[in-house]
This record gives sequence, structure tokens and C-alpha cells, in this order.
Amino acid sequence: MRIESDFIGSREIPKNALWGIHSLRARENFPDNSQFHKEWYMAVGVVKEACYKTYLDFLKGIDRKFPNQEFPFQLLDKNLIEKLKEVASELNLGEHFEHFIVPAVQGGAGTSINMNINEIISNRTLQLQGENCGEYTKVDPFEHANVFQSTNDVIPTSLKVAAIRLLQELEESINNLRLQVENTESKYRNVLRVGYTQMQAAVPSSYDKLFSTYNNALSRDWWRVSKCFERIKEVNLGGGAIGTGLSIPRFFIMEVVPNLRKLTGLPITRSENLSDATANQDGFVEVHATLKAHAVNLEKMVADLRLLASDLFQNKELQLPKKQVGSSIMPGKVNPVIPEFVISAAHKVYANDMMISNLSGQGCLELNAYLPSIGHALLDSIKLLIAANHTLAENLFKELSIESDLTEESVLNNPSVATALSPYIGYHQAAKLAKQMKENSCTIIEANNKLGLLAHEKLKELITPEELLKLGFILSETIENKQ
Amino acid sequence: MRIESDFIGSREIPKNALWGIHSLRARENFPDNSQFHKEWYMAVGVVKEACYKTYLDFLKGIDRKFPNQEFPFQLLDKNLIEKLKEVASELNLGEHFEHFIVPAVQGGAGTSINMNINEIISNRTLQLQGENCGEYTKVDPFEHANVFQSTNDVIPTSLKVAAIRLLQELEESINNLRLQVENTESKYRNVLRVGYTQMQAAVPSSYDKLFSTYNNALSRDWWRVSKCFERIKEVNLGGGAIGTGLSIPRFFIMEVVPNLRKLTGLPITRSENLSDATANQDGFVEVHATLKAHAVNLEKMVADLRLLASDLFQNKELQLPKKQVGSSIMPGKVNPVIPEFVISAAHKVYANDMMISNLSGQGCLELNAYLPSIGHALLDSIKLLIAANHTLAENLFKELSIESDLTEESVLNNPSVATALSPYIGYHQAAKLAKQMKENSCTIIEANNKLGLLAHEKLKELITPEELLKLGFILSETIENKQ
Amino acid sequence: MRIESDFIGSREIPKNALWGIHSLRARENFPDNSQFHKEWYMAVGVVKEACYKTYLDFLKGIDRKFPNQEFPFQLLDKNLIEKLKEVASELNLGEHFEHFIVPAVQGGAGTSINMNINEIISNRTLQLQGENCGEYTKVDPFEHANVFQSTNDVIPTSLKVAAIRLLQELEESINNLRLQVENTESKYRNVLRVGYTQMQAAVPSSYDKLFSTYNNALSRDWWRVSKCFERIKEVNLGGGAIGTGLSIPRFFIMEVVPNLRKLTGLPITRSENLSDATANQDGFVEVHATLKAHAVNLEKMVADLRLLASDLFQNKELQLPKKQVGSSIMPGKVNPVIPEFVISAAHKVYANDMMISNLSGQGCLELNAYLPSIGHALLDSIKLLIAANHTLAENLFKELSIESDLTEESVLNNPSVATALSPYIGYHQAAKLAKQMKENSCTIIEANNKLGLLAHEKLKELITPEELLKLGFILSETIENKQ
Amino acid sequence: MRIESDFIGSREIPKNALWGIHSLRARENFPDNSQFHKEWYMAVGVVKEACYKTYLDFLKGIDRKFPNQEFPFQLLDKNLIEKLKEVASELNLGEHFEHFIVPAVQGGAGTSINMNINEIISNRTLQLQGENCGEYTKVDPFEHANVFQSTNDVIPTSLKVAAIRLLQELEESINNLRLQVENTESKYRNVLRVGYTQMQAAVPSSYDKLFSTYNNALSRDWWRVSKCFERIKEVNLGGGAIGTGLSIPRFFIMEVVPNLRKLTGLPITRSENLSDATANQDGFVEVHATLKAHAVNLEKMVADLRLLASDLFQNKELQLPKKQVGSSIMPGKVNPVIPEFVISAAHKVYANDMMISNLSGQGCLELNAYLPSIGHALLDSIKLLIAANHTLAENLFKELSIESDLTEESVLNNPSVATALSPYIGYHQAAKLAKQMKENSCTIIEANNKLGLLAHEKLKELITPEELLKLGFILSETIENKQ
Repeated sequence: MRIESDFIGSREIPKNALWGIHSLRARENFPDNSQFHKEWYMAVGVVKEACYKTYLDFLKGIDRKFPNQEFPFQLLDKNLIEKLKEVASELNLGEHFEHFIVPAVQGGAGTSINMNINEIISNRTLQLQGENCGEYTKVDPFEHANVFQSTNDVIPTSLKVAAIRLLQELEESINNLRLQVENTESKYRNVLRVGYTQMQAAVPSSYDKLFSTYNNALSRDWWRVSKCFERIKEVNLGGGAIGTGLSIPRFFIMEVVPNLRKLTGLPITRSENLSDATANQDGFVEVHATLKAHAVNLEKMVADLRLLASDLFQNKELQLPKKQVGSSIMPGKVNPVIPEFVISAAHKVYANDMMISNLSGQGCLELNAYLPSIGHALLDSIKLLIAANHTLAENLFKELSIESDLTEESVLNNPSVATALSPYIGYHQAAKLAKQMKENSCTIIEANNKLGLLAHEKLKELITPEELLKLGFILSETIENKQ
Repeated sequence: MRIESDFIGSREIPKNALWGIHSLRARENFPDNSQFHKEWYMAVGVVKEACYKTYLDFLKGIDRKFPNQEFPFQLLDKNLIEKLKEVASELNLGEHFEHFIVPAVQGGAGTSINMNINEIISNRTLQLQGENCGEYTKVDPFEHANVFQSTNDVIPTSLKVAAIRLLQELEESINNLRLQVENTESKYRNVLRVGYTQMQAAVPSSYDKLFSTYNNALSRDWWRVSKCFERIKEVNLGGGAIGTGLSIPRFFIMEVVPNLRKLTGLPITRSENLSDATANQDGFVEVHATLKAHAVNLEKMVADLRLLASDLFQNKELQLPKKQVGSSIMPGKVNPVIPEFVISAAHKVYANDMMISNLSGQGCLELNAYLPSIGHALLDSIKLLIAANHTLAENLFKELSIESDLTEESVLNNPSVATALSPYIGYHQAAKLAKQMKENSCTIIEANNKLGLLAHEKLKELITPEELLKLGFILSETIENKQ
Repeated sequence: MRIESDFIGSREIPKNALWGIHSLRARENFPDNSQFHKEWYMAVGVVKEACYKTYLDFLKGIDRKFPNQEFPFQLLDKNLIEKLKEVASELNLGEHFEHFIVPAVQGGAGTSINMNINEIISNRTLQLQGENCGEYTKVDPFEHANVFQSTNDVIPTSLKVAAIRLLQELEESINNLRLQVENTESKYRNVLRVGYTQMQAAVPSSYDKLFSTYNNALSRDWWRVSKCFERIKEVNLGGGAIGTGLSIPRFFIMEVVPNLRKLTGLPITRSENLSDATANQDGFVEVHATLKAHAVNLEKMVADLRLLASDLFQNKELQLPKKQVGSSIMPGKVNPVIPEFVISAAHKVYANDMMISNLSGQGCLELNAYLPSIGHALLDSIKLLIAANHTLAENLFKELSIESDLTEESVLNNPSVATALSPYIGYHQAAKLAKQMKENSCTIIEANNKLGLLAHEKLKELITPEELLKLGFILSETIENKQ
Repeated sequence: MRIESDFIGSREIPKNALWGIHSLRARENFPDNSQFHKEWYMAVGVVKEACYKTYLDFLKGIDRKFPNQEFPFQLLDKNLIEKLKEVASELNLGEHFEHFIVPAVQGGAGTSINMNINEIISNRTLQLQGENCGEYTKVDPFEHANVFQSTNDVIPTSLKVAAIRLLQELEESINNLRLQVENTESKYRNVLRVGYTQMQAAVPSSYDKLFSTYNNALSRDWWRVSKCFERIKEVNLGGGAIGTGLSIPRFFIMEVVPNLRKLTGLPITRSENLSDATANQDGFVEVHATLKAHAVNLEKMVADLRLLASDLFQNKELQLPKKQVGSSIMPGKVNPVIPEFVISAAHKVYANDMMISNLSGQGCLELNAYLPSIGHALLDSIKLLIAANHTLAENLFKELSIESDLTEESVLNNPSVATALSPYIGYHQAAKLAKQMKENSCTIIEANNKLGLLAHEKLKELITPEELLKLGFILSETIENKQ
């Protein structure tokens, strides 16, 4: 055990823990158990790496422009900063995460996140220098690890880094799913099926038409998500506590974001108004709301597929792949667990969305104290959506199959198919056919055989998928038919 | 009274009611009392006007290309269609709305909206022709008023028309508010105030900085809303029941949207995939979610202003205009009713947002049955936000005032101002000043007089608003100071 | 036109308008169009009636106990108060509602509601006395109409009165629906159907079992709602602005609630802690949340029925009554509009619920400024639920029908029925039967004929509804069977 | 590595893993990372323990009533069941939780939870018997571990057990917090403060009055939560897949719940309608909604305290204890992190609430597939609320302090105090006093000294806390005063 102190008092800390007294107090003050997202932790690493890199540039500039000049303030040692930078890059790789002990639900606008990481960086640096953890006179979590930084610029900036990284992954996962959907669409082109509105049989449609609605929705989602980063690419790093950059050299403010851009390879820029970027969270609201539109599309799509594949559905013409045993007592039962997973995830996204807006609206003056909850929910949703897209592509669409015989038959049996002929044979003749079909539960072909309204060949031609599904009727074709 | 019938039975209808049996049944089936939005009603008018216009073009084309040709189907009379078009244009002006009796909460994907309007159009046309209401053999709500239309294309298309019209109004109202905020920002430029994070005094800031965060947020909102229409500009008019255009002439499908564009002057286009545009509602989810980001900004802003103007706030340096008597028993009390109205409206928007996503995710196969509720909530939110922006501009910002003496004094009294000097006098000297201020509750000027750390003139220079609020410190200036 | 003034300035008011300058300002400050609930307006009427009644008692008491005594404060004239009381009772009947011009979304904790009503009462009293509207020196909205009252006690108290009145109606409507469900349950007792879990066929069940789950759920709802009033029966009337009863005679505080109880016949009591009853809104949160449980049950039930009655469902064994024409273009189509209405209403209740909690959590110190929005949403939900229950009972359950032949056949065709026999013939024999059924798509009777595992009579006995649906198997019966 | 197989194929499993192929598939199908609640896992343990116990009773009964009787079905070995029971009791203690690999967000109504636990129990039993994991011919996850059970009865029943256990803890934590609040209330009895409505100074109040509103709210919360278990005490254990108890001995169905009651000591009963208890989730909706009312009270309370303790508040008369360093750059800054934690937790509860209702409304026929998400959110909320109550009691209320001098002074300076005298000196005299106070910014005592309206002693008496805060005025006292 070692002893650490702050202005409240002293506490024992395990000898080799990289966390310190500030982390411990946070853990006690916030008795929550939800796991903080590792992606955010890693992003704090790279943000701090950019800060240390900029400090080194600052020292280099001073050496060049003001050699031997003394300043009213103390400059930090170049070697120490290089060490801190090295450690920060370890964090960016996810190392030492087991020493991050602050829970997801917490008070403060991220101070505890920042301090836990400052403590990890300081203690890890001490270790690398062969010192004991806790020797903060040599490496200090505030003076050194946090130099020229504030919770209020580091934490939102790192959230944006983490979010943009994950959004790129999400974008890819959507596109991958979309490709699978497109394959399915191609595979079942012109496979007729009855179209349903309000769960009642409406007019003829086809499976590729249905899948094309998913494809289009996912294309929009892909486009949406690919634009999302623009809403959060402006960061407030360098702004200090409230965006005024108080006590931070202007050189640092100007250079730190370009350095972060270089280190991450992400299209990040410095906000023109750092106070605005510190106080307002509407960018997160907008990004998450966009994700919600994607979740809505996923829910709608999988609910459709679950219904079509269900035992409730007549014909049961669509088959989802069997991915796990469905019942602990009914042998052979397979349940639509992938759609259910996706719907569960979608509803978590909706719930996150509500929380994000409500907390974003409760910012107060220079800051929003709820950034940790907002950020946690945002990353949570992105990760859930990646998972949903991934499992849909791999575990549902790849092996989805449709028995096209069953479905075409159901269309020819459905009186709505007669309606499709009305431009060619007139409303009243079409109605006669429909009536015949309904009363005798027969196909349109059988009905026409009986009534002799159309030549058999002509009828066959008019009820091909291509004819039934072309967009509207063409006037000249109705005349031709009439003659 | 007149008698009307449908396949369920017959009902008495008041003699001169423009609504008919279908409206009556809807009213009985859906015993809700919420008022349907007039803007949507008017938009259905213009959509139907476009349909009738296109029918006239269709007749004209037939006359030219197929004179004297007979078709398997019956063509409608040109004069009748012209009459219907005239009546539809009356609806577009809001006329006859008192005959619209379907409530906002309803079953069906808009069938009752469409049928009530079909009945109004038919009966109004009958009236214009000197006939009695209900003489549907002459003008039929289905065959004539609804020709080549379906609820499933007319209702979502008209919702988009109504929404885009209102979005334009919203855009203007945001910009108008933003201008007022900008005026306030200019008026109080460099008026110092204490910046607060987590409701605790942090470091010096100014009123124009605070107002600039609102200005920026509203600029983003304006940009957002101005882009919103793109998400919903693609309509499915001409698609019929499920987007396949079944039994509708291709000519009509191709021409009706351009006609609607011309009639409305709005940038509307036909969706490339009419089935997608019929089945999916993600565009509404995205648009509304964008509105939510605006609501969040409004809530944050007015909560700030309410707090600063409250009796709770020390100094009470900011004054909201008095807009109404605040209490029925405490004479002279004035309450922040405008902020409260805006927060109430914002929360209604959040609630609408949740409902829109949940119902949008519950579309089923070819259609979403909840379009009436989705549309109602969407228009509700836009109108509330217009109202909020309007009242903020007119009833709050125009006469908002700040007593700048009070606020500057509070900054000079706040030890945080000493921190601002640390780049120039070093951390330890700054800390001494802060300590002196705290212990003697005195201003920084008095503290420096006592301690004599800086020349009075130098100090005065360093604590001007311009110096305190410039972005970061400039290295060379700290040297100059030191010397 | 007449002129009215307040401390802000003067305004023209239509000569015979019962509303005055305070209503006008509210309308201008809150440019919303949602209709305020008439039920709340009426409840304010009865609350004020109770106040005037208590004032008369107060005068009577003074006459008796302190005849000819002078007090430091002015007493109001008995005749005037009697007139006010008479007018208040008119409001309680819904009269003059057309003069209530304050919208549902508003700022202030109800001041504008209270003032609009104070103005109506004053002006109506003036009219009855043959005076002109606006002669407030004779009847004053503050001094007279509002005597011993505050917005902060009158408005929450009247909300509770309105809510309890509507809750009683809701209770009745639930019970009425429950009765209809019970009738359906009885009517289809022991009508076998396949039970489904996760939309996959599971094991045999029956229609009465399914309806019994609705019946039980509605019984719980009924019980819940019948207990709701207890959460809001404690009112703060007499508490004045913040529950301390400042400047109100203790006699009044003690007597006004009993008077209100008498006038309304509702089980209302005075809160033991009037400050608590003024500051906290958790009772409304709890009541509304309870309503949400009812909405959830309704949504679940109607979604089931819609599915079973849909064209998607094999057999389509359950028929909902035809209540309106379902399509403007597909003749004969009937849609499940009643279930859709109920689901739309349920989601409005969910959205209201979210808004109520969020705003209730934002109370501040002595008061919650959002009571108008909270109250509006609460009454909105209750009315929607009454509407939903009503239309379900009248327009859905009364004529719902099931074709029992279809459904029993589907059970005998479903291999799951074989599982039911395993306690009697052992797992392996049962599995053989199921396999035979699956492979030959035959009924269990045909399969047994082929395999000869059980005597035909024995089998018939084991697959009666009574046998298949009794709770578990009885050990002795399996032996008997074996022998 | 060992190989396990199911009807989909074979997979490698680590040699000593207690989980098996079904857990592995779930993990792959549901790529989520949220941690499942250990409390639920433990509750499944005790539920299965009750099942094995009942099986033993069943065997005992057979031995007694039907010695040497053969049955059509196979009975399991007594020793095996005893072993399973022993292992289940280990799970009830939280053992082997590291082998539970199914994430919180998942498809299926709990099948994967049940199967992971069946695999753990089987493999752990094999281990105890000296066998290798995976030797399922000896101990089978379906046939043995799951005997007479179904996911659909075990999982909801265990959720109820877990919830009731946590609700008891929550109840205690509320009561503990309430006690601390009551202590604070007693400590600051009759400490005057200005009461605020809508953030504007209203009329005199006191700190104990304010704390009494919290105390009352928490008392209601305590009562609410203590009643919650009644909503979920009825379980469906024994009901099998859909509540009909198919293929389960009636003896088992009758005895298993009493056994569970004995093992847990909880007031659990068997539902009268097991199908209802399987299909409907309204009990969870109601319980969670009740928790939401508690969250609302907590949010309101801590927002008040944060405001009163903030640097924004004039006087800053209330001090929250310093629990951690508040800023990484502003030395000495302490933030209201405990209130912020509580508000964050409250909003998570609101979000959970929305998700629970939405998913509960989406049950389908015999089952609700979203029970895992519903249950996870429910337990999440209870745990967060326990955490919130705990940290509020320990880290906020215990050391909260108020400087009563500051606050009383502010009341005597506030013109509203003059209003309090109007019953004794009449409205006009009181108004004169208020005017004098306002114009000269003086206390009421100074104003009265100037105006000489009341004897100094009399005034002192009337403005004691006791006088100012008693409920209303007493008529006879106003006379006495007058004389």
C-alpha cells in the first residue's frame, strides 16, 4: 500500500495500482458498475499524445526563437514530456485499461475520467523511469500529465475522436449489410408475392421490390452515417476550462489540433468558437438522432423478415437460417433470434437517444455537466448498431432463402391480380374475374378458362412478373390489347 | 338530412354537410378530439389539384395522339375534372376546413383523411354545379375525386408538402431569432462576467461570448433546418397503393410530380423507388431528429437566461422584459414565462420525437399504418418551434438588458481573475493575489495595491476585457511584461 | 372595444369578451394552438365555487363570533361572493368555455389559466349585475374572483379534480371492455388453437386461454386505475403561493377542502404538508405511469388480434368486424383500423409519460413551473384511453368472431400435439407420431391410424380440448392409460 | 479443447469451460458487450434449485404412493438430481459467474440465458462427479438440468426473484436516505429563507419546510417501493412453454412455487393464470414506472441542492460536502458531483422506463420475446437507484451545512416579508412597509423604525419564524393585534 493525499485527506492505494486517490474517490462517490467504453479511454490517450507532442513543438520553438530567455512561468523538462507522450501512445492502444476504475455513470463533466487517466499516465511514467507509483513530485497528474489541458477540452475532444473512429466502422458495417441485401434482391428478382398494406393483402408485388426498399433505406443510412462526422469534427482542444484558452500559450492552441489530426488521421478541425464547442452538445444530439433513423430502418426490416418467416405466415415461403437451438423444451424449434436481437438493440438506441437529448438540453452556461452520460450512450449506440449490422449480414442474410413456387402461386390465387388487368380489359371485366376467383377459390387462369374473357396466351403474358410490376400502364398497350 | 350508404349500411348525414358517411364512420371509430393540422389539409388540396391538372393533361394528350380512339376503360369528363381542380384549389387555401371532421389520432394509414377530403371535394363540386350534396352518381368520392390516386401516395406526399412549407417558415423564424441574438451579442461586447462550469465560478468570460454560443448554435440550427427538406423532398405520388403504380397510366405517374412542383413552387421530386418511398418513414425520423437538436439548443439557451435573470442569481445583472403579470397574489412579481413556454415546447418536441421513431420502426411490409400520428407529431413540432422562435425574438430578446457595471465588478472580485495573470507574473505570484482577494473579499486591484506585485497601470491593462478574453497568451508578451 | 390596463400598459379588448388583458397577453406570449382541456376548465370552476362557499362560511362565522368587530383588513360583500359562486358553478358546467383563450402549451405554473378564469368570472358577474365587462372596480379579477386563492393552489387542485373525474370514467370504460372480453372468452371456451412463442408454433392452446390473458390484464388495469385517485387525492388548496397559507385565514384553509369534497362528491383531502403538495409532482408521475401499464396491455392485445385477423395469418380464423371502408382504391378491403387507433393512442400515452416525468423532475424549490404541460398530458392520456376502451368494446369485441373449425384442424395438424401425449405413451412413441405427421402432413388421427400406437377412442379422448389444456398431467392417469 | 454438437453442427469448446455450444452460438449471434446482471444469474440458480428440490419430492411421493410402479416415461436418478440441486445452490451464491458468457442484449426470450446456465450446471455436476465437461450423456443440459422447466417459466420467475431481492435493498436505501434528510430537517428547523417560485422570490419560508418536502417525497417513495413486490410476486414457474404445464406433472406445478418461496424467503405465489403470467409484462411496466417516480423525486431534490449550493446563488448559504477535487486546472474548485451523478442516474432510469414500456407492448400472443432487455433495464434501474440513495446519504446529506445567519437576513431584506403582516396591519400599511424596504434596500425592521407603523416589539414577534410560518392567520389574533 502507498498513501496518497488531496485537499480532503489521505487514502491508502495498492502499491502498484496505476490509479490514485482521485480515481478512488470517484469510484466511491459514484457506486455504479457499468463499464466505461474502452474506445473512449483509448481516444483520451491519443488526445493527450497530441498535447505532449505540441508541448515538445512549443519547447522546440522557444529554443529557436527565444534561446536562453527566462519566462515568468516554469517550462517542463523535454525528457519528461517525451516519456509522457510514449505512455499516452500506449493508452491509445488500449493498454492499462484495467487500471481505469471510474464507472460509466458518474458526476462531473469528465473530471474523473481525466484524472484517472492522468494518474495512470503519471504512474506508468514513473514505472518506466524506475520510480515507485505515487511519487508525484517527480511526475504530477496535474502539473505534468495534464499540462495545458482541461477536462473540459480533453474529454469532449476525445469523445469525438472515439465516435468518429466507431462511425467509420459503422459505415463499413452498413455497407457490408447493404451488399448482402442487394445480393438477396438480385437472387429473387421478379419473384412475385402478394403485397400487404396494414397486414391485409393489397396488390401484387415481388420479393426484389421488397428487398429494394431495404436496400434503399440502408443506402440512405450509409450516406447519413458517412456525413455524421461533419457534425462533430470541430473540437475545442486548447480551449481550456471554458473555451477562452486562459493561461494556455496561443502557439499550443493553434498547433494541438493539427497534431491530433496527424496522429489520428481523422478529419478533425479546431472550432472557430471554442466557447460554443465547450458549451453546446447539439452536434451529439444530431449525430445520435441520425443513428436512430438507421435503427428505425433496421427494426422495420427485421420485423418484416421475422413475420414472413414465422409459422404464423401462410405458406412460410421465406426461411431464415437456423443459428441456434430455439427452445429448451420443444425439440427442433428455431426462433428468429437475430431479428429479436436487432429489435432489442434498436430500442436501446431509442432509449439512448431520449437520454442524450434530455441531458444535452440541460447544459448550464459554459458547460454541460452530463457529457459522460451523453458520450457513453452515444458510443453504446454506435457499437450496438455495428453489432446489429454485422450479425444481420453474417447470420441472417447470407443464408436466407425463399421458395419462389409457393409465393407465385399465392399471387395467382389472390383476386387482387385481376385488378391489374383493368387497364387492358376494363374495370367490369376485371371485376368479373376477381369475383369468379373469390367464389371458387381458384387461380386467375382457371377463372379465365371458365369465363373466356381473354385468350389464354394473352393472359399469361399480362401476368408475367415483368408485366405485373412495371411502373403504371402504357396507354398504347391498352389499345393494342383491345384490338 | 340525407342518406348515404356503404357496404356496411346506411346513415343519415346533415343535408348540407360536405363530409359524408366515410367521415362519419371514422369519427365514430376514433373517438379522439385532437384537432387535425389545417396545414396538412391544405396540402392535400394542392396534391389533389396536381392530380386533376395531370388528368387534364392526360386527356389533352389523348385528344392529340389518339383522337377518337376507344379504350377498355372509361375516361372522365373534362368539365368535371376542371371543377374538381377548382375545388381542390379552394382547399389549398384552407376553405371548407370546418367540414373536416376526422381527428388527429386515428386508425388507418390516412384513408379517413383522404376520404373526408374526397367527400368534401365531391360535395363542394356538386354544390357548385347546383346539385345536392350526396348525389354521388354525378360526382363520386372514389371514382372521380380520387381518380388515379391512393391514400398511400396522396397522404404521405401531402404531409411532405405541408412539412416543407412549414420548414421554410421555421427557417425564417430561426434566422430572425438569430439576428436578435446577434444584436444582443454586439450590444454587450466585452462586458465581462464570471464564467461558470457546473454552476461553480470558473474563469472570466463575457456576455458577448455567452451570446456567441447561442448565435453559433442557432446558425447550426438554421443550416440544419434549411437542409431538412432534402430528406423529404422525394415523394411517392403516382405510386398507388404500394408504389407499383398499378392501374395508373405511366403518363400520369411521370407528370403528376412536376405538376405538383409547379403548383407549390417547392423543390419536390419523384422518388426513384416508389415502393421504398411508400414503405419507409426514416426521412421523417431524420427530419424530426434534426428539429430536436434545435429544441435542445433553445432549451439550453432559455434555461441560461432564466437563471441569469432569476432572483436566485447574485447581482441579477440580466433583465428579461416584463411580458405579463406573474402572480395572482404577489403584486409586482414577474415570472420568466417566455423561457418556460420554450422549455415546455422543447419537451413536447422530445416526446413527439420518441413517438415518431417508435411508430416509424413499426411499419409492416409495404406500408406504415401510423403515418397520421407520425405526420401530426411532425407538424406539431415544427409549429411549436416556430412559435418558440417567434416569441423569443419578439418577447424576450428585443428588450433584454444587462447592467454591465454589476457584472464587471463581480469579475474583479472573483479570485479566478488572478489565475488569468499567471502567464505574466507566474503561478506563485498569481496565487498570492488570489489568496489576498479571498481572505479580504476585495477586488484584484485592492489586493494588488496591498501586495504591490504589479504596477497599477500594468494591472489595469492586463484586466481589460480585451486582454482577459483573448484566445490564449502570446509568449512574447509575457517576456515584455516580465522585463 | 374596451380598454384594459396592467402594469405593462393598456390594450383594447372586444366589448363583450369575458376574457381580459391578462388572457390576451398570455395568448400573445404563447403562440401555440393546442386546445386546453375543457375538463380542467370545469374543475377550476368547482374549485373556485368551493372557495367562495368557504368565504361565505367565513363571513357567517364572523357574524356569529365577532359581531360588529372591525378587522385590520377589508371583508368582501356577501352578495358579491354569492354572485361569484353562482358564476363559478356555471363554469363547472362548462359554460363560457369559448372565452377561455389560453393555449395548452404555456409558460407560468398556471397563472394564465387562473387569470383567464378570474377574468371570465369577474366579467360574467358584471354582466349578471347589469354592468359592462371590464368594470373591475366593481368586480376585480384579483381582489374578488381570486380571493384567498393562488394559482399555485387552485391550479394543481383543479387538475386533481379533473383527473379523478376522468379516472372514474376510465375505470368504467375498462370494466366495460373487460366484460366484452369475458363474453368472448366464454363464447370460445375450449376452442383449440396452436399457441405461438416468438411467432413460431409452440404447443396447443385455446382461444379462451388467450382471451383470459387479456381479461386478467384488464382486471389488473381496472384495479390499478381504481387505486390511482389515492395518489392524487391530497390537495394543497388553501396553501397559497408556497403552501404556507400566508395571509389566508386558518378557518378558510381548514374548511375549503371539505367544501370542495362536498361539492364534487370526490374523496379529496387536504395534504398534511401543503408545501410538499405544492412543490412535488411525483403523484402525477405515478398515476400516469400506471396508465402506461394499461396502454401497454391494450397495445399487446390489439396487436395480437390484428395479427390473428390479418390476411398474413394462415387460416385467418379470427374475424374483426368491418367498421369502415378500408381503401380508396381497393374495393372491399377492410383494414384493422380499431387496433391501429388503439396502438396510436398507446404510443401517445408513452410519449406523454416521458414528458411528464422529465418535466416533473425539473421542479425548482417551492414549485414546478411546468404544471400546465404535465396536467395537459395527463388528461390527454386519460381521455385517449377512455376512447380506446370505448371503441374496442363497441367497435371490435362486440362482433368479433372465430371460425372454430379451422382452428381445431390446425392443432390436429400440428406435430406439437403429439408432444402432449408423451406422459401417456412415453417420449419415443410421441416422437414417432410427430414424425409421421410432419412427413405426411397429416393429422394426429391419421398418423395414429397408420402407426396404430393408441386405440382410436383413447386418442380421441386424449386430444379433447379439456385433456389437452388441463394444467399439467396427473400421475395416476398416466398409469391408467399405460395399462 | 472438446467438441460439442447440436442440430446445426459441431464446435470446439475449451476443455474446462463450463459453458457449451449453445452459449457459444449465443455469443456469436449477439455481438454485444454489455454485462448481464449477476443478480439475475443468481436468481436462476435458486429457481432451478427449487425445481430440483421439487423433483426429489416428486420421486419421494412416487416411492410412497406408487412403489414399483412403471410409468410410460423415464424417471431421473435421485442422486443425479441431488447433485444438480447442490450445484444450483452454488449458482445462487454467485459462483461460476465467469462461465456465463451471454451478453445483456440478446435475441430470444431468455433461451440463451437458460441454456448457458443449464450448461454450467451440467458441466459443474460432471466435474463434481469426476467426469469431463461435455459428457452430456451422463448429465444432459436439456434432459437433466432443465427437467420440467422451460425458458419461458424459469427466466421470468428468476427475474422476479432478482427484482424483489433488489427492491428490498432499495427500500432500505430509501429509508436510510430519508432518515438523513429528516436529521437535516430537524437540524435547521425554523431557519428562515426566502421561498422561490419559478426562480423568483416569493414569500418567506424555511429550510425545514424545504427539507420536509423531500422527506415527504421519500416517504412516498419508500411506501411505493415497499408495495412494488406485490405487482410481480405472482410467478409462472411450472407453466412450461406457454403456461399450460404441458407434459409436466401436476404435483410439480403445485409444489415448485412453495419450494421456491421457502428457499428464497420471499413472498412469491403461483399465478392463478399461468398463461397470463407468461404472456403479459405489465407488472414490470408498473414496477419500473413506480421507480421512475422515485427517480423524479431524487432529481428534483438534488437539483434544488445543487442550485442552493452553487456559486450562482446569492449568499451561497448552503454548503455541500467536498467529496473530490473538482477540476484538473482550477485549484480548489469543488463541483456538485453527487447531485450530477444522481441526475445522470435518474435520466438512465427514464430511458430504461421508455424501453421497458415499448418492448412490453410488443409481446406477441403467448410470449414476449424481449424479456431479457426488459429485465436487464429493470435491474439496472433498481441498482442505480440504490447507488443514488446510498451516495446521497453517505456523501451528501451527512455533512451538508447551512449558514443560518445569511439566510435569515435575506428574508428580512425581502419585501415579501411585509406581505406577511397584512392580516395584522392591513394591506395598505403592509404595502407602505414593502415600498420603503424596496426603495431604501433596508430590512423590515429599519423600514418600520422609519415609518413607525408597529411597535418594535410587536414587529419582532410577528417576524419570528414561528409566526411567519404558521399555517394561515388566526382571526382572533388579528383583532388582538389591532387593539
